[in-house]
Amino acid sequence: MATAGEEVPNKRVVLKRYVTGFPTEDAMEVVTGTARLAVPPGSSAMVVKNLYVSCDPYMRGRMTKHDRPSYVPDFVVGEFALQMGDGSTFLLCTLSFSAWDLTILWPPLVQILQALVNFGVCKVVASGHPDFKVGDLVWGMTGWEEYTLVPKPESFSKINHPELPLSYYTGVLGAVGQIVGQLAKLTGCYVVGSAGSDEKVNLLKTKFGFDEAFNYKKEQDLDAALRRYFPEGIDIYFENVGGPTLEAVLNNMRNHGRIPVCGMISQYNLEQPEGVHNLFQVVAKRVRMEGFMVFDYFSKYYQFEEEMAGYLKEGKISYVEDIADGLEKAPAALIGLFTGRNIGKQLVAVARE
Amino acid sequence: MATAGEEVPNKRVVLKRYVTGFPTEDAMEVVTGTARLAVPPGSSAMVVKNLYVSCDPYMRGRMTKHDRPSYVPDFVVGEFALQMGDGSTFLLCTLSFSAWDLTILWPPLVQILQALVNFGVCKVVASGHPDFKVGDLVWGMTGWEEYTLVPKPESFSKINHPELPLSYYTGVLGAVGQIVGQLAKLTGCYVVGSAGSDEKVNLLKTKFGFDEAFNYKKEQDLDAALRRYFPEGIDIYFENVGGPTLEAVLNNMRNHGRIPVCGMISQYNLEQPEGVHNLFQVVAKRVRMEGFMVFDYFSKYYQFEEEMAGYLKEGKISYVEDIADGLEKAPAALIGLFTGRNIGKQLVAVARE
Repeated sequence: MATAGEEVPNKRVVLKRYVTGFPTEDAMEVVTGTARLAVPPGSSAMVVKNLYVSCDPYMRGRMTKHDRPSYVPDFVVGEFALQMGDGSTFLLCTLSFSAWDLTILWPPLVQILQALVNFGVCKVVASGHPDFKVGDLVWGMTGWEEYTLVPKPESFSKINHPELPLSYYTGVLGAVGQIVGQLAKLTGCYVVGSAGSDEKVNLLKTKFGFDEAFNYKKEQDLDAALRRYFPEGIDIYFENVGGPTLEAVLNNMRNHGRIPVCGMISQYNLEQPEGVHNLFQVVAKRVRMEGFMVFDYFSKYYQFEEEMAGYLKEGKISYVEDIADGLEKAPAALIGLFTGRNIGKQLVAVARE
Repeated sequence: MATAGEEVPNKRVVLKRYVTGFPTEDAMEVVTGTARLAVPPGSSAMVVKNLYVSCDPYMRGRMTKHDRPSYVPDFVVGEFALQMGDGSTFLLCTLSFSAWDLTILWPPLVQILQALVNFGVCKVVASGHPDFKVGDLVWGMTGWEEYTLVPKPESFSKINHPELPLSYYTGVLGAVGQIVGQLAKLTGCYVVGSAGSDEKVNLLKTKFGFDEAFNYKKEQDLDAALRRYFPEGIDIYFENVGGPTLEAVLNNMRNHGRIPVCGMISQYNLEQPEGVHNLFQVVAKRVRMEGFMVFDYFSKYYQFEEEMAGYLKEGKISYVEDIADGLEKAPAALIGLFTGRNIGKQLVAVARE
C-alpha cells in the first residue's frame, strides 16, 4: 500500500463527449492521472481507494448535457472542470487530486469532476475526519477511478456487515428488480417478473422465487400477456421500464392500483421519449403513480441495511451479481445495461481489496 | 300536473349512433315516447320529473362503444336496450316506461337505457319508497328526458338547501374548474387558471378571485407561460386537461408536487390520444399523480354539501352557470363543452319546476 502523501498513478473513466441517443463505449475513455494519498493539512476530507463501483441506468441521464438543471448534475466532459454549489446538487464528493488544495482554499467549490461518479464501496487510505479512520470500509458516492478525494466524508456510510460480500454494498441500494420482487414475495404478494431473455426468466422463477415470469421480447402482445398473468388486474406495478410496457400495464391495472415509479430504462436512450397514450386510465382506475428517489430516504438507510442483511444471512433473499473486472471494462459494463447484457446486478471491481 | 298513473308524452335525448372522434349534435336525437306517472304496485321505485340535468365532459366516453368495460357503462344506441347487472356498474337508475313492470318481474335487470343519463335535479311525482314522497326535491343520476322511473331511489339525495338556486345541485359535484380554484384560494394557495378565451380569463380573475389566469390559446409556448407564473415551480396541478398541457406542467412541477387527476378533456375526442413524452419527470421530481372519481367519495357528500352551501351563502364562493333551455338544446350544449362554448357550468333546464 502507498504511504501517506505519496503521489501515485490514478486510472479513471472520464466522459469524452456528451451523448445523444444510444451511448457507445467510445463516449468514455480510460485515462491515467495522479492521486495524492493524503488530505490537505487541516482539512476534514478523506481519500478512499475504490474497490467496487456500481453501474446504474440513471447514469445515462448524466451523460447528456441538459438545458435546465436535472435532478442529478450532468457529468462533465474532459479531465478538468469545476462545479459550484447552488444548493440543488445532492452530494459533493469527487475532487481532483491535481487541484486537491482547492478544498481548503476555496470553500464555495463543491466538485471538480474528473471521472464518472456513482455509488461504490471503498477503503479509507487517508483521513482528516474524526469519524473515518484509515482502513475503514465505507460506501458512498465516489469516482470511477482508483483513488478519490472525498471533501465531505459525512456523505459516506460505514460497512456494518463485513461478514457479507463487500461487493453487495454497491447493490444494496441499486439492484432494484431482483430485490423488489423478492421483498414483495416476503410480504405475501403474487409476483410476476418481466425480463429480456429466457435465461433471466428462468432465474426469476428458480433463484428468486417469483410466481411467474415472462420474456417480454417474445410476447407479441404485452397487453394480452399481462391479462394472462393478471386476469383480475394488477394491484402494484413497480415501474422501471416506461414506454409501451407502462401503456400495457395501465390497461391492466386494477381499480385503486399503485405504481411506484423508480425509473424508465426503455426511454433513456431515445432522443425523443415515447409517448404514453392511455394516461386516462389513471382516472378510470383511480391509479396512484408516484416517483421516488433513494436520496429522499437515506434517513431510513440503517433500518433497511439491518433488515436486508438479515434476509441475506437467513437466505430469504438471493442476490446475483455480474462483476466486470477492472476500470478498463467499466464503459462496456455500463453500456451493457441498455442491451440487457448483464445478468444480475452490474458492478465493476476496481480492486478486490 | 299529471295525475298518478296517467300516461303522458315523454321527450328524451337518445344516442343515435356511437361516436368516434369529435362528436356532433346529430349523434343524438330528441324523440318523444311515453311515461306512466306511477310506480308498479309493490315496487319501491319512484318516478321523477327532471328539472335540470348536467352536461359533463366524461359523458363523451359513454358515447363510444368500448371493447372492454369502461369505468362507466357505455350509453346504448337507440330507443330500447337492456343492460344486466354484473357488479361493475355503479348506479342503476333509468328504466324505460314502456317496460316499466320489468322492475318487478325481472330482478336481475338493472337498466333499460332509453335516454342519455347523468346527474340531475328532479321532483318526485310518484313513489313506492318510504324515504321519498311526492313533491320531494332530489338529485341523482337521471335520464335526459322529462320523466324517469328510478328503480333504486336510494341512489338519490335530498336537496337539503332549497334556499339555494335549485340548479346549483346539478353542479355541486360537477363544476370542477371554477370551484377547485376558489377552494384552493380559501386554503391560502396562489392560484393560476388556464382558460380558452379572454372573457373566461377575465372571469377567473375578477369573479372568482384567482391570482392570475392566462388564455392558453394565445400562448405560443405553454412551458414558458408556466415558468412565468411559477418561477419556483408548481406544487399542485389540478389535472383536467391532459396532453400537451400536462407535458408543460410536468416540466414545471416542483419536487414532491402533486397532481390529482380528475379528467383530460383535451383527449376525449381524439381517435388516438396524444402521448405524454416526459413522464420521467414523475421520477425526477418525485411527483405524485393520482386519479379519482366522485363515486368513491359519496360517503363525504353531506359534509361537502354543508361546507359548500355555507360558502355560497356567505359569498365566499361564486358560481357561474350556463343554462340551455329545453331538451331540444341539450345535444348542442353537450357538444359545446368540447369547443369551450360554455361560460360557467353547463346544464340543461328540462323544466323550471
